[in-house]
Amino acid sequence: MQIGIVGLGRMGGNIGRRLMRAGHTCVVYDHAPQATEALASEGATGARDLGDLVAKLDAPRVVWLMLPAGKITEDTLNDLHKILGADDVIIDGGNTFYKDDIRRAGQLREQGIHYVDVGTSGGVWGLTRGYCMMIGGDEAVVKRIDPILATLAPGRGDIPETPGREGRDPRVENGYMHCGPVGSGHFVKMVHNGIEYGLMQAYAEGFHILRHKESKDLAEDERYSLDLADVAEVWRRGSVVSSWLLDLTAGALATDGTLERFSTEVADSGEGRWTIEAAIEEAVPAQVLSAALYTRFRSRDAESFPERMLSAMRFGFGGHHEFPVK
Amino acid sequence: MQIGIVGLGRMGGNIGRRLMRAGHTCVVYDHAPQATEALASEGATGARDLGDLVAKLDAPRVVWLMLPAGKITEDTLNDLHKILGADDVIIDGGNTFYKDDIRRAGQLREQGIHYVDVGTSGGVWGLTRGYCMMIGGDEAVVKRIDPILATLAPGRGDIPETPGREGRDPRVENGYMHCGPVGSGHFVKMVHNGIEYGLMQAYAEGFHILRHKESKDLAEDERYSLDLADVAEVWRRGSVVSSWLLDLTAGALATDGTLERFSTEVADSGEGRWTIEAAIEEAVPAQVLSAALYTRFRSRDAESFPERMLSAMRFGFGGHHEFPVK
Amino acid sequence: MQIGIVGLGRMGGNIGRRLMRAGHTCVVYDHAPQATEALASEGATGARDLGDLVAKLDAPRVVWLMLPAGKITEDTLNDLHKILGADDVIIDGGNTFYKDDIRRAGQLREQGIHYVDVGTSGGVWGLTRGYCMMIGGDEAVVKRIDPILATLAPGRGDIPETPGREGRDPRVENGYMHCGPVGSGHFVKMVHNGIEYGLMQAYAEGFHILRHKESKDLAEDERYSLDLADVAEVWRRGSVVSSWLLDLTAGALATDGTLERFSTEVADSGEGRWTIEAAIEEAVPAQVLSAALYTRFRSRDAESFPERMLSAMRFGFGGHHEFPVK
Amino acid sequence: MQIGIVGLGRMGGNIGRRLMRAGHTCVVYDHAPQATEALASEGATGARDLGDLVAKLDAPRVVWLMLPAGKITEDTLNDLHKILGADDVIIDGGNTFYKDDIRRAGQLREQGIHYVDVGTSGGVWGLTRGYCMMIGGDEAVVKRIDPILATLAPGRGDIPETPGREGRDPRVENGYMHCGPVGSGHFVKMVHNGIEYGLMQAYAEGFHILRHKESKDLAEDERYSLDLADVAEVWRRGSVVSSWLLDLTAGALATDGTLERFSTEVADSGEGRWTIEAAIEEAVPAQVLSAALYTRFRSRDAESFPERMLSAMRFGFGGHHEFPVK
Repeated sequence: MQIGIVGLGRMGGNIGRRLMRAGHTCVVYDHAPQATEALASEGATGARDLGDLVAKLDAPRVVWLMLPAGKITEDTLNDLHKILGADDVIIDGGNTFYKDDIRRAGQLREQGIHYVDVGTSGGVWGLTRGYCMMIGGDEAVVKRIDPILATLAPGRGDIPETPGREGRDPRVENGYMHCGPVGSGHFVKMVHNGIEYGLMQAYAEGFHILRHKESKDLAEDERYSLDLADVAEVWRRGSVVSSWLLDLTAGALATDGTLERFSTEVADSGEGRWTIEAAIEEAVPAQVLSAALYTRFRSRDAESFPERMLSAMRFGFGGHHEFPVK
Repeated sequence: MQIGIVGLGRMGGNIGRRLMRAGHTCVVYDHAPQATEALASEGATGARDLGDLVAKLDAPRVVWLMLPAGKITEDTLNDLHKILGADDVIIDGGNTFYKDDIRRAGQLREQGIHYVDVGTSGGVWGLTRGYCMMIGGDEAVVKRIDPILATLAPGRGDIPETPGREGRDPRVENGYMHCGPVGSGHFVKMVHNGIEYGLMQAYAEGFHILRHKESKDLAEDERYSLDLADVAEVWRRGSVVSSWLLDLTAGALATDGTLERFSTEVADSGEGRWTIEAAIEEAVPAQVLSAALYTRFRSRDAESFPERMLSAMRFGFGGHHEFPVK
Repeated sequence: MQIGIVGLGRMGGNIGRRLMRAGHTCVVYDHAPQATEALASEGATGARDLGDLVAKLDAPRVVWLMLPAGKITEDTLNDLHKILGADDVIIDGGNTFYKDDIRRAGQLREQGIHYVDVGTSGGVWGLTRGYCMMIGGDEAVVKRIDPILATLAPGRGDIPETPGREGRDPRVENGYMHCGPVGSGHFVKMVHNGIEYGLMQAYAEGFHILRHKESKDLAEDERYSLDLADVAEVWRRGSVVSSWLLDLTAGALATDGTLERFSTEVADSGEGRWTIEAAIEEAVPAQVLSAALYTRFRSRDAESFPERMLSAMRFGFGGHHEFPVK
Repeated sequence: MQIGIVGLGRMGGNIGRRLMRAGHTCVVYDHAPQATEALASEGATGARDLGDLVAKLDAPRVVWLMLPAGKITEDTLNDLHKILGADDVIIDGGNTFYKDDIRRAGQLREQGIHYVDVGTSGGVWGLTRGYCMMIGGDEAVVKRIDPILATLAPGRGDIPETPGREGRDPRVENGYMHCGPVGSGHFVKMVHNGIEYGLMQAYAEGFHILRHKESKDLAEDERYSLDLADVAEVWRRGSVVSSWLLDLTAGALATDGTLERFSTEVADSGEGRWTIEAAIEEAVPAQVLSAALYTRFRSRDAESFPERMLSAMRFGFGGHHEFPVK
């Protein structure tokens, strides 16, 4: 089927490529002309601006936005709002906060424009392997864009079937899920990323314990110098902690056992923070997911004010300070 | 090669079976005669007691213990200590605390008896799929028992190779690793289980946030009734959080979306606790692994004393209590 | 000076009383007529509604709101907005979210109405002991209402002076602080409550460890039956952990060592949650304050879904479940 | 009464002084002769070694050890073991691990020597204000040394009485408590220090949130530059979070609002670690106390290996790494 794609970065460009390889027709636009031209040279129809993109699509249109969450997505939506018509569909495939989806969909609905949010996981691996997608919106609209979704999804592959799924929605086993009303796709993707933080932190703590086992502070016969690359690799085989994140860890350690080329400052994105806020709104304890987020905050704190406070208090009750005990 | 196996529970029995299927010779003993007989009927040589087992093995002997950690393993080792001879090998394949390994190996070394600790992961899946093994001991001894280890391990299978591992120990990619001196096998297995707790808790918190998204306490247009079985399933396909634990979760949810048949009280084993103690000994922060352990402690606390204390304090400063403010 | 008070619950009523005892003039209103009458019988001028209250005050007026945060405060502000005039002052003494303060103050400023937010700590003890107050707003306006604030504050009392405070704002040592622009008073009060959660949880965990020291699971010569009431009491004398919360704890334990009359379900208020959200906005790790909040969430969770998930996974890899290992 | 004191550092010396001022007789010894002479010049009888100290005491003797926990205390106990006699009393006033108390008391009991453990809080403030003491041992022995304990304790002072304590052990309100059998004094002191860590961390996190409220990353009208010294001071007056630790914090901030002169690396002592180990032994969740300990560990970690692991994984799934997705 025909689709417009706005935003041709690593994700958006590869989405276009995967769709075209399967025979879909893509009209594409990026604010950087060379990105538009690059995809045009691979078979897409390039557009010079949003108006041109809309003009080149047959009504009712389908436009997939693959832009950084926040102002750019918001501005583009506002522009499209003015030039799209009834029964057109906007798909937001970026990392949008789900409450923004709900608000926007309500505004667009007044003009009869449909809105679908698609939480998309897969990174650059997606081009060849497909994208895991979590989708929010009206079922009729999600059905309408099914040819697109089915192409982008990984498909069943050789992953073992889960017993007991007979009679359930087969889309899910192909790697895409209609989660519920607008916003629910990005909500599920948000929690996915929150879990990702927790899993990563669990591995990081465990490997830290393994690494420090050679510490000079320990009794000599209780010290081990463990080969962390080998530990990660052996756990990939039949152990309970095998996972894709472990595969990546094994890969990183294989060529650099101390990971010295990697940053000690760890970024965090909106999803990790929103997950904790959602937990708090729901009164759900999220100890592990919070701890994972806080470790990243801590990694970027050069000032260490709270640690200074602890030192100040210790100094105080150690008695060097002129303050009377009660 | 020939091996003695002591302890024929689910793990020990299957280890014997996997070895015999590959042509190894097993002399087996369990304190329950029917367990011994069962394996004998499958081709093993049954022994009536430890002495009989030792008598039926050719020197230098190899004896694999697959017993519950603690007193039973300790007693069996003490008994074997008296009847084994120089150059014999004892393998402890159970979940022993690594400091006990170090102590025991030192005692056995005085008689020239070798000790190897093998942390074994794989559960009942191990019979068909093989066991992921983490091994501590002298390299010469570990080499001697390599035929056994190579048979028990999962092998390379169809797991994608990790780039950059050229020239590294090939045993690791077959699913077993010689980690270092005595105790290091159980130490690595211990941390493996600690990580396992953290991973499990990350998923549990994330799915809790998904589930409570239908809470009546939330604004009506921000509520979603999410199908958790489908979420777990879709994440198995190309998402960053795919793992074997997620596979298991998808399986459990597929047939029971509310998990009502599962216990609200969660047990913990020694490894989870020892991992935190190791972290503290090493002065390594283990926020996520601790939180995962504490959640299990909390799940079994029917008294809720600390919560009562919080209520008592709230009552106090709410002013109902006859206690003067400073 | 003259002041209007809206909301005559435990806090609002006592604020009026403390002001009248110091010679201030109070015009009071509560939506429950008997509450208005009660305070009128103690010397206040009762008002039948907001309009009557405004009419009975001399311009420029000062009106103190002491209402539950949220809709009631919002509605009352909207009503007052219409009937107050330029240079009048509204004080919100409740537990309002500081971002609501900022928004409201902006709206009121258009009519020249001033807005001051006062975070008020002290509970029912405040009548006799005074209220610790954290204040946000324009300095000129805060100065104007200083007679009110100085009366409500605890004063210097017999609390030892902090060395090094010479030349600093003397209001602070009298128990009230002008923190900064609008919202900053409630912001500081919010963090105060966040810290309060953390302190309470630290005591609760410590006393839990003391209490369980008599557990039958421990070695017999390592068990102690500790008198928790005595422990709390002795720590009030010269120890590092002495505090007002400890005083309250000692009081509660003195008459009920098991705290059986207190609830196992612990409520939380907006401030605890907003504190974590502020930490996340600022990218500040708040491990202890979050853990304290989550303990309260957990205390009210009867369903235990995440624990069931852990059990389901354990069941899965224990091998009872028909799901193939990778 | 007469007492021997071994170890005349800041704590031991002041204990001697406080006892002598109340008319007790002290025979003192420190391995540094000048420390012994210093106290002798203030009225004590100096001893040149342990044997001399024992010789100068009347049987049955009472010897108070005030030494660093660990090897020095252990060695001194072993030496005293040989030269003390039946019915003599050894008091360990240091920060000994309570399980060491239990072991040592058992060894000394064979010679009829009594052992009392005293957890002592108060630092250098103790000389003038008295020491809060938590005591383990046989009641008859604790009674025997009561004159010493009563002198060292802070006494009732002007701290408000706790209602409901009528008929309870009056020693407690004088600041010393007989907690139970040997080891229980140090156990209670250990948990005291664990709680102390948690309280300190709660304040540190809260003040961190206050301080970062001026961050340029926040919306301009939501930024506040708060005077932290004033906040700490105002909270000392009638607020729920008032405590001695807050008094110390107010003192530190009053002269140095950024705390730049204090270390960013925070030490931890045995008690904090042992408290977590006790919690784990008892299966008691200790989320806040652990988080406080881990913050200190983290403050001293210059390598940041776990953060590098997180970066490596992020790099991996961002797709720059040659590792195939499943």
